[in-house]
Amino acid sequence: MNDEQDIRDLVKTWLSASENGDLQTVLSLMDDDVLFLVPGNEPFGKEEFAAASKQMANVRMKGTSEIKEIEIVQDWAWMRSSLKVRATMPDGKTVVRSGSTLTILRRSVDGQWLVLRDANLLAPEQ
Amino acid sequence: MNDEQDIRDLVKTWLSASENGDLQTVLSLMDDDVLFLVPGNEPFGKEEFAAASKQMANVRMKGTSEIKEIEIVQDWAWMRSSLKVRATMPDGKTVVRSGSTLTILRRSVDGQWLVLRDANLLAPEQ
Repeated sequence: MNDEQDIRDLVKTWLSASENGDLQTVLSLMDDDVLFLVPGNEPFGKEEFAAASKQMANVRMKGTSEIKEIEIVQDWAWMRSSLKVRATMPDGKTVVRSGSTLTILRRSVDGQWLVLRDANLLAPEQ
Repeated sequence: MNDEQDIRDLVKTWLSASENGDLQTVLSLMDDDVLFLVPGNEPFGKEEFAAASKQMANVRMKGTSEIKEIEIVQDWAWMRSSLKVRATMPDGKTVVRSGSTLTILRRSVDGQWLVLRDANLLAPEQ
């Protein structure tokens, strides 16, 4: 089993599922105890993620990620990426946000890597 | 050896050294390959950290941190904290920034825990 490839596949699946509005698949890639960290807000979990995604159902999202490093120790991993997300509103207006992410992953009892903590440092592009 | 206590002590030392303008002590708590992640900027390292600190030498900094969780696996650890930093400018103006941090630490060959990655999600308080 190639853990690093599994984690790279997880990122790919996450981005394509987000792009396709496939929330169930995205949710299946996170631990039930996941916490998302973003600037200016309290950490939030899986339910809040799902609620926010549903509210943005008519916003078209296209994310491109470049994984800068992955470190794996036993059932834990951390990953740093550069992420760019283009959001297109129903009226055609587009917002591009980019920046770093720092992610903690944990291997579940059935061997699947899941996102446990995700720090998202994206900011609007100038 | 209590790794968790060592890491808590590192945070305490970091904050008090920052408050006292003791840059050398702060630098001694980070790995030479440290990267700091902040919103809206490229990751930056130890030299840039030192240069920015020197530029802000006349800004009085007072940080209070609450460690929310620490996970240690072999020579690696990750930590999530809630951090508040009060910066007082020479003219007395005060800015308070607060939010989460997500930090990766690594134990050096001589057994000392050092900060290797630090995602800082602080935003100005409203």
